[in-house]
Order: sequence, then structure tokens, then C-alpha cells
Amino acid sequence: MSDIIRIVIDTIGGDNGSAVCVKGAVEGLKNHSNVKLFLTGHKAEIESYLSEYEYDKSRIEVIDCSQEIDLNEPPVQAVREKKDSSMVVGLRLVKKGEADAFISSGSTGAILAGGQFVVGRAKGVKRTPLAHLLPTSGSPSLLLDCGANVDVKPEVLLQFAEMGSIYMQCVCGVDNPRVAIANIGVEEEKGNALVKKAYPLFRDSKIINFTGSIESRAIPFGKADVIVADGFVGNTIIKLYEGLSKMLLRELKGAFLSTVRSKIGAIMVKKSMKKTLQKFDASDKGGAPLLGLNGLVVKIHGNSKDGEVTSAITQCVNFVENDVTAKIIKGFENSEE
Amino acid sequence: MSDIIRIVIDTIGGDNGSAVCVKGAVEGLKNHSNVKLFLTGHKAEIESYLSEYEYDKSRIEVIDCSQEIDLNEPPVQAVREKKDSSMVVGLRLVKKGEADAFISSGSTGAILAGGQFVVGRAKGVKRTPLAHLLPTSGSPSLLLDCGANVDVKPEVLLQFAEMGSIYMQCVCGVDNPRVAIANIGVEEEKGNALVKKAYPLFRDSKIINFTGSIESRAIPFGKADVIVADGFVGNTIIKLYEGLSKMLLRELKGAFLSTVRSKIGAIMVKKSMKKTLQKFDASDKGGAPLLGLNGLVVKIHGNSKDGEVTSAITQCVNFVENDVTAKIIKGFENSEE
Repeated sequence: MSDIIRIVIDTIGGDNGSAVCVKGAVEGLKNHSNVKLFLTGHKAEIESYLSEYEYDKSRIEVIDCSQEIDLNEPPVQAVREKKDSSMVVGLRLVKKGEADAFISSGSTGAILAGGQFVVGRAKGVKRTPLAHLLPTSGSPSLLLDCGANVDVKPEVLLQFAEMGSIYMQCVCGVDNPRVAIANIGVEEEKGNALVKKAYPLFRDSKIINFTGSIESRAIPFGKADVIVADGFVGNTIIKLYEGLSKMLLRELKGAFLSTVRSKIGAIMVKKSMKKTLQKFDASDKGGAPLLGLNGLVVKIHGNSKDGEVTSAITQCVNFVENDVTAKIIKGFENSEE
Repeated sequence: MSDIIRIVIDTIGGDNGSAVCVKGAVEGLKNHSNVKLFLTGHKAEIESYLSEYEYDKSRIEVIDCSQEIDLNEPPVQAVREKKDSSMVVGLRLVKKGEADAFISSGSTGAILAGGQFVVGRAKGVKRTPLAHLLPTSGSPSLLLDCGANVDVKPEVLLQFAEMGSIYMQCVCGVDNPRVAIANIGVEEEKGNALVKKAYPLFRDSKIINFTGSIESRAIPFGKADVIVADGFVGNTIIKLYEGLSKMLLRELKGAFLSTVRSKIGAIMVKKSMKKTLQKFDASDKGGAPLLGLNGLVVKIHGNSKDGEVTSAITQCVNFVENDVTAKIIKGFENSEE
């Protein structure tokens, strides 16, 4: 594909400032010769960081923005009112077709609101789910929806499954992804009303490789490539994953530091432990995509460094080169026949 | 309180056979002079194990049962049809008022069904939740409902909160327990329709000390004493807790065994690690209570040993001595005024 892929990077809102966005952007250009980047934010600051690097100046455009969206602002209001914020300016480029994808480490709420209200849903898409790659003892699983939509209908869950499956196949290279529905038992009669109604829709879908229900205890073992849940359950899963991992590792660290003997032992296991824990970092696969929009919107962690920005650029390239949006729209046309 | 507390122990269905039930029962008698125990199951086998111990024979009664409920049987049907199973015989003793509490390591589904259909709900109780003590980096938190009821109404969640609060106060000795509702954000406007409707009911309840919403990432840090969720969300939390802990510890073990250096280090950290992990075992507080019945039904782990049986006896004693059922009924009378 020879077309230029145009990606916006919102340089405001991350814990590490715009410097990491600039560094990650320049690295991304090196990896992909067909990419052009827009950096939204404080122009003088961005250009000052850019001046530290050698790069093709025609491939990065800096767009000055006079406003910032704060993490603590009510998201919908912020997106509506701050039209010259780095986020809204970037999202509007996608809306107008001047960019294909948008990356931000800013407020998740504002990114969700902006994706829906500024960029807008693709044809046939009922709701736009936020997806996250969960690290597991096997390969990472895509969990969606992670909190963009609560109280959804069964047909919406089916669309999540279909979008997630296309994403995993096209962007993460998983062949015929195993799609499971998050449930409280593996038997077909299990579940709440929503899951019970969604189950037969999943089973009958021609787009997905449905492998049935998955209990949350099996999720960490990588038993599915795509895990579908409503936004309340998905958000509960992703945040518990984060909190429990953090707590257990903190407690173990405390244990290691508790005696002289364990301190010495800790030094000896450190390298192997680090190697294992690195396996659980899925950020080399990019950030969390908001799916089903007219373009791709990616939320990266607030504490992202340049490596995450570069990975997100690759994620956007894979998404665009594989025509994911078109495949999603086509899938939904067929399913509505 | 001088009355005799009568507790049934179902000796069938656990992974470790009836021997651990017998051993735990005899130990329980030593701890509590006011307890009488009924052991349901295979009489000859139970008596053979009992003959190994010295105990007051008037305080243990063995009841022979000709049937067993299997883990894989459809629970409702099993409870209805197997009237001479160790579980149904035991539950009927509670129903008839001949026993105060029932302990089993058998099929969770059958225990839930049996609790509701055989023992029956206490006056004013809409639904009977299964509660679990979650280990945290602070003190354990009671999570309910862990899967007995999906698709509930807001008033039902409120009852769960009230029952959980009374339980934590009376059985676990937590003063003025902090009650939180499982949610996807801490702001009052967050949540799905159920949580949004339940929130003001929680806030206005005079029975509980409501501290607001808890996000699942905060659960492992012990930020609440009682955490209320519908059975789908609660089941998702408890099973993810179990699965993720197991996966992470297994991966770490793999890391420890990966090199000679890490193997030696592992030996040196082992003791401190074990001490830390023991903190996360809440089984000394008893099993999972099914609340809101005319009596107490406790589900202990399938792999329980005698220690868990003994702890569950203490849990039943605390429950009965503190008149928890009466307090629940009284609480609901007041709340309906």
C-alpha cells in the first residue's frame, strides 16, 4: 500500500510531557516510511524538542493549540467547550478525513466522548467499545468493552465480538481468533439476562470463531483471544487485573525486603522475575483502541514513554493498512441481511 | 448464652473425604463447649474415623444417608430428587429447626439451591446472597453477592449491603463496617442503571455505614469491609481474584526455577514469601456464608482440610450466638417502615 497514513499525536495530557511524544513520533517515522504525523499541543515546546532530532521535516506537522483538557474535567463538557484543545483539534482532523488515526495519553473519559461526538461512529456501528489487551500466561487477550458502554443490548455485544475479532486478526495477526463471552459458568444456560440473550447470537454469527463462555478465573491463562463483556463488567475486569497485580507484587516486594536473607535472595531472583514480568507488558502492541469509529482512536497510558507512542504508531499503521474500519462496516452490512 | 448450638457437617463432596470433616468436627467440639454436631454421610465410614478420637459421644450424632450429590449434577434437580443425600438431609435439619447451621464442601450450585428451596429465606429477605471474604493487603473484605443472584433490583442490592454489614460486625468483629458498592468510577453519577438506582438507597440506609463506590482496582487494597455487587459482577470479581493470583504465583515460581542463580535465591526468599502469602488465606475466618436464610448455610472449599471445618464451626457459633438472623429480620422490618 503506497498511500500515506496520517496519524495525529496529542502531546498534552500524559504524565511525561510532550518530550516523550516527540521522541516516540520521530522513532515511528523511522519504522514506517509511509507515515505522516500531526503533533497537536504547544507549538513552541514541541518544536524545541523536535530540534533535537534529525528527521524529514515534511513528515511532521505541528499544530498549535491554545487549550488543554484536564484529567479532572467533566469529559463531555470539556470536549464540547474546548474546541482548540490538543485533543479536539486532533480528533477533528480524523473527522474531516485529514487524518486516519489519533493517539492520546489524555483523559480516558474525554477520549471516549471525543471519539463518539467528534469523530463519530462508522456506518452500522451501534456502540463504540474501548478495547484493552490483557496480558496472560499465554498470548494477550483483547477485552472489550472496558467501560465505554454500560447497559447494552445483546446485539451490541455481538458487534463488540465481531469488531474485536477483526481487530485481533488484522492488527495483532491472530489467525481465526477464539472469541469468548465473559460469563459466570461455562454451560450455555449460565449468565445474566444479557449474556443469555447474547449467547445464541454469538453462536450463530458467521464472522466470529465463538468458543463459548469464559469464566473470569480462566482469563489470566489466555484461554481466549477476544473476550466480550458489557462495559461495566469489562471495566471491573481490567481494573481488578491492574489492582490485584499491583497489590500482589507490592506485597511480594515487602516480603523480599523483610529479612537480610530474603533481601539477598531477592537480588538473585531479580533478573528472572523481571524477565517474567516483562512478558506481562502488552504495551508493545500499542494502546487501547476505541473501535467502530470513522477512523482509529487510541488511548495510551497516562505514564506512557516514547516506546509506547512508537508502538501505538505501528498499531495505527496496521489498522489502516488492513482496512479495519471498512472490514467492520462490511461485516455489519452482511450481518444485517 | 447457654443454649446448645447445633451444627450439621455434610461429610460428602469434599476432595479430602470425610476423614477431614471428622477431624475438624472433633477439634470444633474442643473449642466450643456449647456445640452439638450432626455428621451426615456414610455412617460406617464416619464412625470408623470417629473411633480414632476421644470425644464426648453425646455431642456428635451421625446420620446415615444413602445418597450423594455429585459436583456435576444439575443442582436444582439434584436437591429436589436426592432427598436422602447428605446435603438435603442436613439442610432439612436446619429447616425443621433441629439444627442452627449447616456446613458443606459439596457442589456450590446444590448448596445455593438447597439453601433457598430446602432451608428457605428469612422473613423480609428478597434474595439470599453468597458472600466471600476476599484477602486484601489490609483486613479481609466481604464481597457479596458472589453468584447466587443475577439480574437483581436495587432494593435487593441494598439488602445485600445490610446483611453483609451485620455479618461483618457480628461474625468477624468489624466495628461499623465500611460498606461500598462495586462501581466503575467513584463519582455518584457513574455506574450502570442498577448501581445508579442503588446508590441513593445505600446513601439513605440507616443500617449501613456507606462509604460510596469502590472501583475494582481498589478492592485488593482493603478499601472497604463490605463490597456489594450483583451476582454476575461479584462472581466475576471472586473468580478473577482466584485465577489471577494463581497465574501470577505460578509464573513467578517458573521464574524462580529458571536459572541456578534464581533457584538459590528462591530458597532464600521462600520463608518471607510464605509468611506474606499466608496473610492472603482468609479460611481461618470460615467458609462462604449464604445469608438471609432461616439459619446459616456455609460453603467451604472443595479442598478444605480439617482446619477449615473447625473454622467454619467457629463461624457458625459466632453467627448463632450473635443472633445474626434475628438482626437481619429486624433490620428489614425497620427499613420497610
